[in-house]
Amino acid sequence: MTLTSDFGAGSGFPAQMKGVILGLAPDIHIVDLSHDIPAYDVLAAALMLEAVVPHFPFNAVHCAVVDPGVGSDRKAICVVNGEGRRFVGPDNGIFTPFYDGTEKVWELSDHHFVPVPASATFHGRDLFAPVAAWLAQDVEPEKMGPRVPVAVRLAWPEPEKRASEVVGFCVLVDPFGNLVTSIKRGHLPALKGGYEVWAEGRRARFVRTYSDGKRGELLSLFGSGGRLEIAEREGNAARRLDTGVGARVTVKIPSK
Amino acid sequence: MTLTSDFGAGSGFPAQMKGVILGLAPDIHIVDLSHDIPAYDVLAAALMLEAVVPHFPFNAVHCAVVDPGVGSDRKAICVVNGEGRRFVGPDNGIFTPFYDGTEKVWELSDHHFVPVPASATFHGRDLFAPVAAWLAQDVEPEKMGPRVPVAVRLAWPEPEKRASEVVGFCVLVDPFGNLVTSIKRGHLPALKGGYEVWAEGRRARFVRTYSDGKRGELLSLFGSGGRLEIAEREGNAARRLDTGVGARVTVKIPSK
Amino acid sequence: MTLTSDFGAGSGFPAQMKGVILGLAPDIHIVDLSHDIPAYDVLAAALMLEAVVPHFPFNAVHCAVVDPGVGSDRKAICVVNGEGRRFVGPDNGIFTPFYDGTEKVWELSDHHFVPVPASATFHGRDLFAPVAAWLAQDVEPEKMGPRVPVAVRLAWPEPEKRASEVVGFCVLVDPFGNLVTSIKRGHLPALKGGYEVWAEGRRARFVRTYSDGKRGELLSLFGSGGRLEIAEREGNAARRLDTGVGARVTVKIPSK
Repeated sequence: MTLTSDFGAGSGFPAQMKGVILGLAPDIHIVDLSHDIPAYDVLAAALMLEAVVPHFPFNAVHCAVVDPGVGSDRKAICVVNGEGRRFVGPDNGIFTPFYDGTEKVWELSDHHFVPVPASATFHGRDLFAPVAAWLAQDVEPEKMGPRVPVAVRLAWPEPEKRASEVVGFCVLVDPFGNLVTSIKRGHLPALKGGYEVWAEGRRARFVRTYSDGKRGELLSLFGSGGRLEIAEREGNAARRLDTGVGARVTVKIPSK
Repeated sequence: MTLTSDFGAGSGFPAQMKGVILGLAPDIHIVDLSHDIPAYDVLAAALMLEAVVPHFPFNAVHCAVVDPGVGSDRKAICVVNGEGRRFVGPDNGIFTPFYDGTEKVWELSDHHFVPVPASATFHGRDLFAPVAAWLAQDVEPEKMGPRVPVAVRLAWPEPEKRASEVVGFCVLVDPFGNLVTSIKRGHLPALKGGYEVWAEGRRARFVRTYSDGKRGELLSLFGSGGRLEIAEREGNAARRLDTGVGARVTVKIPSK
Repeated sequence: MTLTSDFGAGSGFPAQMKGVILGLAPDIHIVDLSHDIPAYDVLAAALMLEAVVPHFPFNAVHCAVVDPGVGSDRKAICVVNGEGRRFVGPDNGIFTPFYDGTEKVWELSDHHFVPVPASATFHGRDLFAPVAAWLAQDVEPEKMGPRVPVAVRLAWPEPEKRASEVVGFCVLVDPFGNLVTSIKRGHLPALKGGYEVWAEGRRARFVRTYSDGKRGELLSLFGSGGRLEIAEREGNAARRLDTGVGARVTVKIPSK
């Protein structure tokens, strides 16, 4: 099972969830995906899940709680997507990258398995953790409540394709200061000589890996998640350019 | 087993404890409760344990090391409380919330099981970790040394009850900037219409959950640990009020 | 297995490695040694490993990825040292403390077991994690590729011994602000009365443990890793002296 949240690893909130999970499923292996999602930032959590979940075995259950609407009428759901991956969390779009129309979604409302939350503010502990523990022990998602026809989806960050350029923006800054963008490999035509990439009015030389750059040189490359990044070799591109999420990044496409 | 400390998760100190524990008890499941307790802040650790430990199964051993007196003559202890929960750490009051007079406390001094610490500065690794590993494997606490008649207790943060108000203060700020106070549900009379709560000279509207507030509105509510909190919907109340631990919070009690 | 990196615990990168490892070795116990190594700081990672690895059982596999040269022609290696401890990571000196000339080193290049990395930027996930998972399941290191005659070693921080003093420097600052130095117990003559230690022009009284000092007093002592530290009781010596890594620390040796 993986856990994702905006709680902070040392806040005690992830530990409360783990206590509940281990009480119900003592032999389960719990992995912290991240508890450092920016507070209330559902899109950042969805991007994190998109990058990490595909590297887990298919039998993992992914419980994600970035939940500004906790206690409101937003639904609580579990999901089995087309690949068979399982997710538990709020119905606020946090699992958008795993929806392709073939996913099945259930509302967590049948109180045979689903607890009535003891608090109005921490469904991670009181609702999602126990449901994830049941699913991890192969209780069927059908037992959790009725099907939800359509789950909430986030507007997904995509680049804009124009005649002579593809215009994207920074969707997250990683701990090395690399600007990870909305532009993926598939958004660009295959070009032998690499790409002409601009960020914040500066050219970022397209390379294969960070160490292809000179120290202090602004670089662009496809990162390990398949997204175009702006980077600086052994430096911090975000600090260097004094920018962050939202920064515009442009790839020039030569006319043929 | 859970681990709590002020070491910092990435400091290498928790990992040293885990190495020792796994050397003695290879199959044990170790959960980080928190390693982000403010340095030397025994009360903060005790509050963290109070919030998290009740959500763990009763067979967990809780090892907590916020230990400004390491190497001094403060005792090292293990505790079994009235509920049967087990604790290992310094005798500095860190387990105060679990003492009700029925707890049994042993000094860690019988060197059949208890190691002589290899360092004067890191009993977490050299003393508490191995003892916790033994206890987790059901070695009896009696084997660790003689009974301690009375463990050290912290002065516990309580609110002041007056005729027309209950006056408490902020005991910790969570990662969302919520001010968690010394006022618990049981400290207030049951009132149908909710409470009139003031923090730093401002009214904080009493609600059931964060999303009951408007964006930017100052709120008060009972958090998931049963303590009154001052919060801001999708905001940060501590930053908003420019305050923190110690901030005074008052609940007006209407005369009947 | 232990994981060490400069990725940041919440970055999602350690979780990607864990997903890969658990896919290949579902029953393995993974311990985060630290993911808070300063970015690109191979020496800091080596010092962390030196402090922590000796406390783990000998059957642990230690995977460490601080890897500014990822994607370049730096080798990827696994190591079995003279004690039988096993390591996986880049050949950039990160395992220097465990080399004494008796270690055996293999290049990760036989693609029967070693995957061809899917990315040029994240060999932690694509190369080191799967190899570490194989080794943890007792696949022999010989299967990973040919022997490397000599691994890269870091210049190791040592103190300078003079007639009347030993001059060292701060190699890392721990989360309590203690300045951990290049001076180890063995670098100093045994002296009954303790040592005369100076840091940044100030005397730091030599004690056995932090609580031997008065509040606010500058102290020196041998820390839990056997290195001389400059500390302040329940304070932060680095902040107090406004200094950090590289700060000069001198021990006066009385003439006999």
